[in-house]
Amino acid sequence: MDRHFDEELKELKEKLLSMGNLAEKMINQAMDGLVKREPILFNQINNWENEMNFLHIEIDDACLKLLALRQPTATDLRFITAGMKINSELERVGDQAVNISQNGTEYLKEPQLKPLIDIPRMANIASKMLQDGLDSFVRKDVELAKSVLERDDEVDELKDQLFRELLTFMISDPTTIKRALTLILIARNLERIGDHATNIAEDVIFMVLGKDVRHHAAEKPRSPGV
Amino acid sequence: MDRHFDEELKELKEKLLSMGNLAEKMINQAMDGLVKREPILFNQINNWENEMNFLHIEIDDACLKLLALRQPTATDLRFITAGMKINSELERVGDQAVNISQNGTEYLKEPQLKPLIDIPRMANIASKMLQDGLDSFVRKDVELAKSVLERDDEVDELKDQLFRELLTFMISDPTTIKRALTLILIARNLERIGDHATNIAEDVIFMVLGKDVRHHAAEKPRSPGV
Repeated sequence: MDRHFDEELKELKEKLLSMGNLAEKMINQAMDGLVKREPILFNQINNWENEMNFLHIEIDDACLKLLALRQPTATDLRFITAGMKINSELERVGDQAVNISQNGTEYLKEPQLKPLIDIPRMANIASKMLQDGLDSFVRKDVELAKSVLERDDEVDELKDQLFRELLTFMISDPTTIKRALTLILIARNLERIGDHATNIAEDVIFMVLGKDVRHHAAEKPRSPGV
Repeated sequence: MDRHFDEELKELKEKLLSMGNLAEKMINQAMDGLVKREPILFNQINNWENEMNFLHIEIDDACLKLLALRQPTATDLRFITAGMKINSELERVGDQAVNISQNGTEYLKEPQLKPLIDIPRMANIASKMLQDGLDSFVRKDVELAKSVLERDDEVDELKDQLFRELLTFMISDPTTIKRALTLILIARNLERIGDHATNIAEDVIFMVLGKDVRHHAAEKPRSPGV
């Protein structure tokens, strides 16, 4: 392979990893602000979002240039289009972290509703899914990507559990409604981060195997006689 | 231009329009079920989602093949990568319609909470945004795409308004909490459809002008002395 092209692909990979690091930092910071009840910690998230928006455009441009100038085929083509998709997913993870910080700011205006255990737990799982999704991209590791898909259910379950608990709060004491609602929104933000990590893992599997796992095979109608 | 390639691009355009039609049908059907209070109408949405999942894979494959075999540059390259992105957005609109039908099924298990006026209004705006976003793609019409971006605020405002109204409901009468919560989730589903339409419009502007509008220029730090 052209050595220069090889360098460019490596650079693209590194940029995507920086983007991933930024996304994780944003999620951690949002949880920190929430658990320590220090809304001032949320401020940093907006700075990182600006950084992320730049990286997003930069990576998209780099991919377009690679497609136009290198005219890649097969593996490289898939790598670059997967990179474009992963780039979009990561940018949306950043948006979710911003949403968490906005919801968090509202939440911290009132006294604590309940000790936050499940929300940071959801964040940990989602964050690890993201990390492993990107790792699986870099290492082209299908097994790791598959393990990400499996963990998405865990996040959803935690969210459902929390949802039911908060509903009970709200029904028994209407003064908790606003805060409970905000926690539900935060849980949904985390759920969506898990969804983005899942999308990344699916893109990786597609990239490596050239097979589409984005819609379960079981849903596909069979041709007659097959 | 190679006439066969021209045909392939036209075919891609048509497939994306079919995908868009399907997305709109799903939104309308979800609203129909909700307003007429006939959950049976939601069933059709799952069938359409299966159809949509197929189209999603088909379009993605078609784009990859065009990139690999035609090795397009400039305008065509941008058209195809925009197509890939729009394809993903539309698939997610379908997911939101499915979510609305699931939330709607829950909602219709209990008596009516309030006449549904704002929710179908949000759906109408979001659906028109989607239509115009796709139209702007086909016609490469930047002005139309820009008008889509402007309408996103309308959807968000309607959602905030509804959110406040439902909060009042919940606080004054705890028996409304579950239903109010479900309506809030549906409003958020519609808000996300508006977001996807916005993403499409941004992709179109980028495709036509080669300029990135995805992150507002005002947010960009300036280089010193510029």
